[in-house]
Amino acid sequence: MSQPVTIAVDALGGDAGASVVLPGVEAALSEDASLSVLLCGPEEVVVPFCASHERCEAVVTTEEIAMGEHPAQAVRKKKDSSLVVGCRMVKEGKAQGFFSAGSTGAVLTAGTLVIGRIKGVARPALCTVLPTPTSDVVMCDVGANADCKPEYLVQFAQMASIYAEKVLGRENPRVALLNIGSEEAKGSQFAQTCHALLKEQVPNFAGNAEGNDVLAATFDVYVTDGFTGNVCLKTIEGTSKALFGAIKGAFTKSPLTMLGAMLVKGGLRELKDKVSSDRMGAAPVLGVKGACMVGHGSSNEIAIKNGIHAAAKTVRLQVSELIAQAVSSPAVSGKIDKSE
Amino acid sequence: MSQPVTIAVDALGGDAGASVVLPGVEAALSEDASLSVLLCGPEEVVVPFCASHERCEAVVTTEEIAMGEHPAQAVRKKKDSSLVVGCRMVKEGKAQGFFSAGSTGAVLTAGTLVIGRIKGVARPALCTVLPTPTSDVVMCDVGANADCKPEYLVQFAQMASIYAEKVLGRENPRVALLNIGSEEAKGSQFAQTCHALLKEQVPNFAGNAEGNDVLAATFDVYVTDGFTGNVCLKTIEGTSKALFGAIKGAFTKSPLTMLGAMLVKGGLRELKDKVSSDRMGAAPVLGVKGACMVGHGSSNEIAIKNGIHAAAKTVRLQVSELIAQAVSSPAVSGKIDKSE
Repeated sequence: MSQPVTIAVDALGGDAGASVVLPGVEAALSEDASLSVLLCGPEEVVVPFCASHERCEAVVTTEEIAMGEHPAQAVRKKKDSSLVVGCRMVKEGKAQGFFSAGSTGAVLTAGTLVIGRIKGVARPALCTVLPTPTSDVVMCDVGANADCKPEYLVQFAQMASIYAEKVLGRENPRVALLNIGSEEAKGSQFAQTCHALLKEQVPNFAGNAEGNDVLAATFDVYVTDGFTGNVCLKTIEGTSKALFGAIKGAFTKSPLTMLGAMLVKGGLRELKDKVSSDRMGAAPVLGVKGACMVGHGSSNEIAIKNGIHAAAKTVRLQVSELIAQAVSSPAVSGKIDKSE
Repeated sequence: MSQPVTIAVDALGGDAGASVVLPGVEAALSEDASLSVLLCGPEEVVVPFCASHERCEAVVTTEEIAMGEHPAQAVRKKKDSSLVVGCRMVKEGKAQGFFSAGSTGAVLTAGTLVIGRIKGVARPALCTVLPTPTSDVVMCDVGANADCKPEYLVQFAQMASIYAEKVLGRENPRVALLNIGSEEAKGSQFAQTCHALLKEQVPNFAGNAEGNDVLAATFDVYVTDGFTGNVCLKTIEGTSKALFGAIKGAFTKSPLTMLGAMLVKGGLRELKDKVSSDRMGAAPVLGVKGACMVGHGSSNEIAIKNGIHAAAKTVRLQVSELIAQAVSSPAVSGKIDKSE
């Protein structure tokens, strides 16, 4: 039996809210007998559900943070929202991890302000596991920090490596800097400084990657500032969507192409599922204590289930403890101004 | 009959060199009776070809800039290379435009140093025409300037708008800033400053775009710094390549899927051609005098032909004259430090 873990879950997160979160929680509980859930949300949603499910405890909240709200303002103001209360459960030790499919910005803010940073981490970062046709790769940061100092990227590399190694089981992951040329002297001044620091301080640093390396899975971990990472991630999503959409159009041109499409659609569906973000369930906010996972707004119940399981796995494999050790290593910590 | 135009062509550019460039030149000349070419390259390559082709004059050169060479060093040192001599033809008024499928960095450097900047342009930029499933869109800068000042992006917007309007025939193109959120206050400090300047100075500025807007063709022109633009462009190329590769794999799984693939492959080929960079031929270096186009290293003869035609069109539609007018408008030029 696995180590018992309690995850606080935001019942209201995501575009579909509780109608998708509750079936996801049910599936997560039934597949993991050592998992307990603290379900945070309105009384009428969480109390009846918890009454009929084992290992699920209701935490009644009275407020909700909507997807479009200003993250920092909403987190500061709505102290009794399901999202903020869920994070408080981790802060108070009642849960070891938190999952929400709500506003990414609000989860990032609440993760940092309510759960709190791991000592020595300059900036928590949003990490994403990208499914590619060949294997899964990790990118960090994909949007938490639009403006970065080069030193942050050293920590992003350390944190994302630990996540790739422990949670994805990638042994000795190869870390690359997302840049615009493979040679050391390529890129912006910022990228060049990052390259030098990564080379000096990250043993598994393998050099520069370019945009086309990401889905080709040339490396295991891609580190970048949150601006570039977010553009890259959304470009992948948009390109994939546009191409699959256009392929669908090409398939419905004539009776013959429609017949052909019927014969290949199984394989295409398999590919689409393989590169879908649902399989990953959620993106970890790395650098906060415990585990903090944010699901896609469009999460379905499988994505919710996988996101909760990823949170439990992150706790069981002691990812945050390993991050704390890594960032306290003198080679790195001496270079980061922790007072910020 | 179109206005007569002379384009200097680098016979050695591209991975395949003269073996692809010469058939491309031949096709370009035969489709445009008002086009003349100054073909720059080694005597044994250019002299026999020009002897057997009308409107093609040989310019014998003795050096070659290889794809991997340091651009600035190569351009400074190899003054008799086909790439540098081609640019000199424009500088000296013997040709009105230049095309090369050689090293992008070397063309950018030679375009700026040998042909020269348009008066008032702070930084020439590499612009690309991106074919999407629905329409073509323009992105600028995609790699010439890894480090930008916000003011540069105002000029990128002006230059790319003129190119989209004149060369692509897009009336009143909608310009967006590539950013990580649609709201005005989103993004890095740099992106926020750019947003404010673009809003103030570019009448057809339509707001922020995200990575997923590019292939969705939400806007006509995407402006960005050369670092972000290059990552975005290569991410699109890589995602497209990975997905088409994986689709091919899914099609060859069984006799039935292979039969299905036969029935749909016409439509897929059409889509692949539609989103292929060959159709565009080349990326314009905007902000240098005359016309300067750089082709993909993997250009085939159709791409070469289209690139030469794009150079001729750029000259005929007076794109550089229009750019000169736009950047000399006092609203913008007063804010740019031209001494750099």
